[in-house]
Order: sequence, then structure tokens, then C-alpha cells
Amino acid sequence: MNFDIVEIIGLIAGIITSMGFLPQLFKGFKTKKLDDVSYFMPTVLSLGMSIWFVYGFLTNSIAIMTANTFGTICCIGLIVMKKIYS
Amino acid sequence: MNFDIVEIIGLIAGIITSMGFLPQLFKGFKTKKLDDVSYFMPTVLSLGMSIWFVYGFLTNSIAIMTANTFGTICCIGLIVMKKIYS
Repeated sequence: MNFDIVEIIGLIAGIITSMGFLPQLFKGFKTKKLDDVSYFMPTVLSLGMSIWFVYGFLTNSIAIMTANTFGTICCIGLIVMKKIYS
Repeated sequence: MNFDIVEIIGLIAGIITSMGFLPQLFKGFKTKKLDDVSYFMPTVLSLGMSIWFVYGFLTNSIAIMTANTFGTICCIGLIVMKKIYS
């Protein structure tokens, strides 16, 4: 595990992409409407991000593991929220 | 550049996460409605994925560069589509 400049860039990228799903979750929570959001998007993304997690594990990248764990949780949250509101 | 098993896992993850935005684009194109989709989600994600691209470049990972280029294009497409349909 190395916390060099490259890993810091990865962490910044990870924090930003992780936060990317939060506005959608907040919007959904506020409007209680997620009809226009596709079920497939968070489903496919959470599958992909789980594999990114494996990639991060194999390449020993904390940034990739952290970002994709948080992203997967947000996507699952979006699926559950859409299910509840529909 | 190394195309070993780790990079192949990364490529698979990249292909899946890249495809993740396509169902949302198709749904938006079909229904011509993206009201429930937050502007912030694709905006923040494309910013984050641009930084992931830099990370992929610095770590010499074709998988990360490819996935995030395609993902960024999809997110920009989503922003443009929402702008047109609203």
C-alpha cells in the first residue's frame, strides 16, 4: 500500500465519483419520484463496481477499493429507493 | 502496458461500468423524460471520471482509461439529453 501522489489522485477521483450518486439519492428522497431513472443503470453499475473492487484489491489500491465500495452502496440504495417509491 | 489477468479483470469491470449508463440513455431517449434524473449526478461523475482517467494514465492502466473515457462521454450525453428534453 503506497500513499504516493498517484494514489492521492485516485482517492480524489474516488471521493468525487462516490459523491456523484448522492445528489441523485437526495433528489429521489426529496421528490419521492424516480420513474425516469432506469433500474438497469444502478444494477449494472453496482455489478461493474464490485468487479472494480476486485481490481483494486488485486492492484492493492485503497482508492479504487474505497470508491467502488461507496459507489456500490449508493447504487444499491438507489435501487431500493426506486423500488419503495414505485 | 501489461495485459495480464489483473488488467483483464479491470477491462471487464470497465466494460460493465461503461455499459451501466447506456440503459439510462436509452430510457431517456425512449421516454423523452429525464425529470427525475439529477443534473448533479452526471456532472459530478464526469468530473470524477476525468480524474480517474488521469489516474489510469499515471498507473498505465488501459482498463481505467478506456472505462472512464466512455463513462465520461455517456455522462455528458445524459446532461445534453436532459437539457434537450426539459
